[in-house]
Amino acid sequence: MANKEIPYKIYLTEEEMPRQWYNIRADMKNKPAPLRNPGTHEVMGFEDLRPVFCDELVKQELDNDTPYFDIPEDILNFYKMYRPSPLVRAYELEKKLDTPAHIYYKFEGNNTSGSHKLNSAIAQAFYAKHQGLKGVTTETGAGQWGTALSMACAYLGLDLKVFMVKCSYEQKPFRREVMRTYGASVTPSPSMETEVGKAMNAKFPNSNGSLGTAISEAVEVAVKTPGYRYVLGSVLNQVLLHQSVIGLETKIALDKYGVKPDIIIGCAGGGSNLGGLIAPFMGEKLRGEADYRIIAVEPASCPSLTRGRFAYDFADTGMVCPLAKMYTLGSGFMPSPNHAGGLRYHGMSPILSQLYHDGYMEATSAVQTDVFAAAEDFLRCEGILPAPESSHAIYAAIQEAKKCKETGEAKNILFGLTGTGYFDLYAYKAFNDGTMTDYVPSDEDLEVGFATLPKMD
Amino acid sequence: MANKEIPYKIYLTEEEMPRQWYNIRADMKNKPAPLRNPGTHEVMGFEDLRPVFCDELVKQELDNDTPYFDIPEDILNFYKMYRPSPLVRAYELEKKLDTPAHIYYKFEGNNTSGSHKLNSAIAQAFYAKHQGLKGVTTETGAGQWGTALSMACAYLGLDLKVFMVKCSYEQKPFRREVMRTYGASVTPSPSMETEVGKAMNAKFPNSNGSLGTAISEAVEVAVKTPGYRYVLGSVLNQVLLHQSVIGLETKIALDKYGVKPDIIIGCAGGGSNLGGLIAPFMGEKLRGEADYRIIAVEPASCPSLTRGRFAYDFADTGMVCPLAKMYTLGSGFMPSPNHAGGLRYHGMSPILSQLYHDGYMEATSAVQTDVFAAAEDFLRCEGILPAPESSHAIYAAIQEAKKCKETGEAKNILFGLTGTGYFDLYAYKAFNDGTMTDYVPSDEDLEVGFATLPKMD
Repeated sequence: MANKEIPYKIYLTEEEMPRQWYNIRADMKNKPAPLRNPGTHEVMGFEDLRPVFCDELVKQELDNDTPYFDIPEDILNFYKMYRPSPLVRAYELEKKLDTPAHIYYKFEGNNTSGSHKLNSAIAQAFYAKHQGLKGVTTETGAGQWGTALSMACAYLGLDLKVFMVKCSYEQKPFRREVMRTYGASVTPSPSMETEVGKAMNAKFPNSNGSLGTAISEAVEVAVKTPGYRYVLGSVLNQVLLHQSVIGLETKIALDKYGVKPDIIIGCAGGGSNLGGLIAPFMGEKLRGEADYRIIAVEPASCPSLTRGRFAYDFADTGMVCPLAKMYTLGSGFMPSPNHAGGLRYHGMSPILSQLYHDGYMEATSAVQTDVFAAAEDFLRCEGILPAPESSHAIYAAIQEAKKCKETGEAKNILFGLTGTGYFDLYAYKAFNDGTMTDYVPSDEDLEVGFATLPKMD
Repeated sequence: MANKEIPYKIYLTEEEMPRQWYNIRADMKNKPAPLRNPGTHEVMGFEDLRPVFCDELVKQELDNDTPYFDIPEDILNFYKMYRPSPLVRAYELEKKLDTPAHIYYKFEGNNTSGSHKLNSAIAQAFYAKHQGLKGVTTETGAGQWGTALSMACAYLGLDLKVFMVKCSYEQKPFRREVMRTYGASVTPSPSMETEVGKAMNAKFPNSNGSLGTAISEAVEVAVKTPGYRYVLGSVLNQVLLHQSVIGLETKIALDKYGVKPDIIIGCAGGGSNLGGLIAPFMGEKLRGEADYRIIAVEPASCPSLTRGRFAYDFADTGMVCPLAKMYTLGSGFMPSPNHAGGLRYHGMSPILSQLYHDGYMEATSAVQTDVFAAAEDFLRCEGILPAPESSHAIYAAIQEAKKCKETGEAKNILFGLTGTGYFDLYAYKAFNDGTMTDYVPSDEDLEVGFATLPKMD
């Protein structure tokens, strides 16, 4: 229970901000499985990954032992422009639900990119700049990651080439335009600029594109262009390391007020937000110092944790990226076209996959009409227009708060509000108009994806 | 000079937040001229204004003497959901400009409506609710005000009917959709739901609409519908009263660090942001306690302060609203269609008009390509994507900082960053593509508007 009055929003001072990232792998008994070469299936080391990622990030990717990494001063200064992010006590939502639960959310949307993605974007861009590189390449789907990275690259004077999934490129002209305004070059994927893109265009002349193909294109350009490397906004160990700043700030803020969360909830696509939010709490759990219920919420239409397989898989469609062992639906899994938000990647962070496999967290899924209904409940009392991705966590938090009402328990529920929905208003319109539909893949649908899993020894 | 190190962002604690609004009229020797009946030209009092505005707001509108008004507890609680807003030290912009000036901006865009408009929206909605009304009506142009009001009305469970200028309704579907998501009804103006709208549609069958017509429609519905009143997002004295929270927070934050601004800059359309930002500083100036250079920045395409006349004028096209004495271009003035942002109202707050007339502040104007260039300089180093409106202040602040570089003076420059530009990306696209043009009305163009001024005794 709280020992002093909790304000609506808890902001840390700059002095209280974390100065190190926390590497959860250091406390995991079962480490995430190593990346493997997609052709030979050999474990990949520093030299194997250097052509793709910049050196410092490869080190972070491979380091399963160092518990804390200093955040470089330049990154700290950038963080100070939009962090600390507020930890909000959802008084109005509690009132609306008439629940004895205390609900908190860490709001990562108060920056122009509109999401938590910026936490890793600036880190990855910084290390690239620091290595003397000219630029970086990446892919973006819904556009949060591309926007975040374009902000970071503009700040550091680094070139950026974004491959944007073609249907998003066409349906989200505003996202594209924000990236251009920050000076990034944005190309619809599949493009005619890469071998992967040309092959895809030849095979499927009217392809809408996919994240998997856009990744392949970005990696190809990075590897072939001198002075360039590839950067990725989720899934990787390095990304979870950078995103730990979310959880570290949250824990400092809660500790100030003597609040211990009973339940921690995050939406999960590739796992960047969830992995970041839970990091220090999971660390305590792994070390046996405290216990928390930790819940991943994913779309019922793309259920990698709840219905996927824990296996080595391709990270991309072009099969140029390392293989990762993760909960996956198979790189050939195609999310339903009616799926509105992000969270549509076929796999899940190897770290989170291992933790889930070892029983340290739960997972649940939700259909999108339920998710948008929760978003609307939330925005009408808490004010913030949430991203569809974030709204999965809202949905689950509301479910838990309603259970507390039934049992009369004043549990502390913490969830991650990863971002805002300004660029998702077509989806809100569909929900407002009553034309939004749900999709839950049948077991047969899932088999199509599983059939694309690599055959491993 | 500062007496301790200034963080990137200064946030007040909830305890430090202002609990009263400041009424600048109390310190004005020359009070703003009273509102007058558009037909009879008689001064309007409490009973005359009650059919249009709710009672408490009429009192605030007419009170030229009470210096402070308590902020009701419910409004304070709503403020706590998105305020205090950060006062940001623009370290990165200073570096980029290589200026000895210290630049600060008060950022009001960290809420879903994306601007400072919410400060008055919640106040006006609260008083309407408190009076037991069923709903309110309003107009919106660029959409900031309508969005803010829809958030406030959703929170309080108050009906809202928004008349949205038709060209914005069609060009800004996202703005419209946010309002709908908050539960507001949005009608393109001119509509067929009012006498004013029908007349306008008959006269100009393909009208794009105007703010003046939308105001007339909203007032007509409010007056004719039992349990409804009209609310307005700018120009009025009550709005400047509510917006004083911007300046009060700013002053508390600066005082904490011993910083006294030398120059205070705000963009100016109807005056709601500028009037709020400068309020406590102007108060000190009026009382002879301190001096500040205060600069209003307006679009060269809609130059009410710099090229308008100080005269009684109609507030709306339908001439159903009270007459106000203000700097105005005439209610018949038509902003150029190539004008991208807001700040397109023909008149200016009577309070600010009087202060400007009495020499307490300066005014300047800027063409939009210069404004967007300043916005781009700003966003690439400070991260935030600014609204076109706010970017007028950025432009002027950069000009002043450059002068400091020439003279070597370490002046403290404060400006208001009123909001974000997420819904203005068509304008950014035009700027990025090099297709944006400028418009400065000729003297003859202005005469067309002046010809519509009422003939007063």
